[in-house]
Amino acid sequence: MKDSAMYIPTYDDMLAAHTRISPYIHRTPVLTSSYLNELTGAQLFFKCENFQKAAAFKVRGASNAVFGLSEDEARNGVCTHSSGNHALSLSYAAGRRGIPCNVVMPCTAPQAKKDAVIGYGGTITECEPSTTSREAVFAEVQAATGGNFVHPYNDPRVIAGQGTCSRELMEQTGGVDIVVAPIGGGGMISGTCLTLSNMAPETQIIAAEPEQADDAYRSFKAGHIIADDAPDTIADGLKVPLKDLTWHFVSNHVSDILTASEDEIVEAMKITWKRMKIVMEASSAVPLATILKNKDWFAGKRVGVIVTGGNVDLDSLPWIN
Amino acid sequence: MKDSAMYIPTYDDMLAAHTRISPYIHRTPVLTSSYLNELTGAQLFFKCENFQKAAAFKVRGASNAVFGLSEDEARNGVCTHSSGNHALSLSYAAGRRGIPCNVVMPCTAPQAKKDAVIGYGGTITECEPSTTSREAVFAEVQAATGGNFVHPYNDPRVIAGQGTCSRELMEQTGGVDIVVAPIGGGGMISGTCLTLSNMAPETQIIAAEPEQADDAYRSFKAGHIIADDAPDTIADGLKVPLKDLTWHFVSNHVSDILTASEDEIVEAMKITWKRMKIVMEASSAVPLATILKNKDWFAGKRVGVIVTGGNVDLDSLPWIN
Repeated sequence: MKDSAMYIPTYDDMLAAHTRISPYIHRTPVLTSSYLNELTGAQLFFKCENFQKAAAFKVRGASNAVFGLSEDEARNGVCTHSSGNHALSLSYAAGRRGIPCNVVMPCTAPQAKKDAVIGYGGTITECEPSTTSREAVFAEVQAATGGNFVHPYNDPRVIAGQGTCSRELMEQTGGVDIVVAPIGGGGMISGTCLTLSNMAPETQIIAAEPEQADDAYRSFKAGHIIADDAPDTIADGLKVPLKDLTWHFVSNHVSDILTASEDEIVEAMKITWKRMKIVMEASSAVPLATILKNKDWFAGKRVGVIVTGGNVDLDSLPWIN
Repeated sequence: MKDSAMYIPTYDDMLAAHTRISPYIHRTPVLTSSYLNELTGAQLFFKCENFQKAAAFKVRGASNAVFGLSEDEARNGVCTHSSGNHALSLSYAAGRRGIPCNVVMPCTAPQAKKDAVIGYGGTITECEPSTTSREAVFAEVQAATGGNFVHPYNDPRVIAGQGTCSRELMEQTGGVDIVVAPIGGGGMISGTCLTLSNMAPETQIIAAEPEQADDAYRSFKAGHIIADDAPDTIADGLKVPLKDLTWHFVSNHVSDILTASEDEIVEAMKITWKRMKIVMEASSAVPLATILKNKDWFAGKRVGVIVTGGNVDLDSLPWIN
């Protein structure tokens, strides 16, 4: 039996995940915009995970992990460390199953995210905003609770769950030539690779990353994982590094990684709010930013765009000073 | 033959409008929110005309007027006066037919709205922000162009077009107990009355209005039209008064008119952005504001909510100072 951290999830794992999580997630809509099609010259299909439960695709992987536990495994609940959408999503899924969820969050995390975790029934233990503190506090919490650790992305259950998103996208669109998704730790991209390499191997997979947190881009070019210490970008869901499991998928199945500047990300974010009338977070705007920057690459193509989430602080928008 | 200004549009007019305009409009989605259902105790169905062409329901009535013209009538195009969504919508519809659209707008109208009119191919003539100036300038424009006048709401073609929205709502939801829509000049409410009084006469129709522009509320209580001179509200689509045709529908078919304060409107607007992840304009938030204020009225009911539009200045949001 393989060590679970090294287990590579399969297409069948994704199919099983989809059956398992479908009572707890939305089959989110795919939206189009004639304005953005004209602007880019491509035919864009936006898979709107900002309308997902907890307003993020991460509820797919979190739900797959939570509802895949045996009664025995679930007894002590789940635990994780995350300052973002995984914390909300795991709290939501655990709440639906009625088991405890312990989340280690940096004390600097936005109050809105903390409130959302608590609103879904999660318990927060705060740490300092450093890797050392997070790991030490998380070890204590896990030892004290005995909870099942659900990593935000480097977990085969999570990747299999995220893969359900592009399965729906392909069903809803009848197929696309390219899928573009943001890349941070690589959970969504890995799930996309898992699904499309089986379901539609001719479909190109492009990862989109902030220039200011381009560790995946540099890893991809170098052929090995490069992890930055503390990159700073408005796309706050994309600051974390690749890990062994996500590197496996990225290095084997991603066609290319494109990057965008902070200004380009904000511009793409604002244009979707203005023209599509949807609220997406900065991380979700990185794919459109790279498409707008590389129009020749996408012109004439059918392009799936994963809108990963919609958790935004409405009191502090990046285009308003 | 009746004078066209006094012609009361019929259910068959609405059905004909729906067939006529369907190539040019979206069948917009109906969204739900488990959070808002819990908060209100009602089952809410949001008919999202913020996702409509030109981001407003007004494209329904404008398209019905434009595409209902004979070749002869259409030769000189259309004209109107409007500082808001009707200007955009008529420009869009005229552009699709390939006929001129002349719009008289106050010089004080937001540049974003002027840009949108021009973007759709409309021609703007500016007036001073007063009724006197608007009427004088409009008379000149109409005389010079010979365009067919499409009033923003007091026009049977426009009302028949707006009525297509609640027909879709009823089809998409399988029926509701109550429909709540904003009221300004009364075009959307009149269309709703036209459709539902025939299609679902047991469905209550509630109009929602800003307290600070409550002329329709006072008209409804008094039994005759009361027009305010220049009401001031953040719900800028709802400042205009009822006219004879819309008063006919309001006085005969509306169950009641509820009002909300400016703060309540802004709160309802922000809550939909935050929880539903959609961009709606302030006028569109007035129905939810009145539902949140009168929960007992709506508890346990299936409630359709018309989200009338999504044209917002993203650089100036009412909850950010």
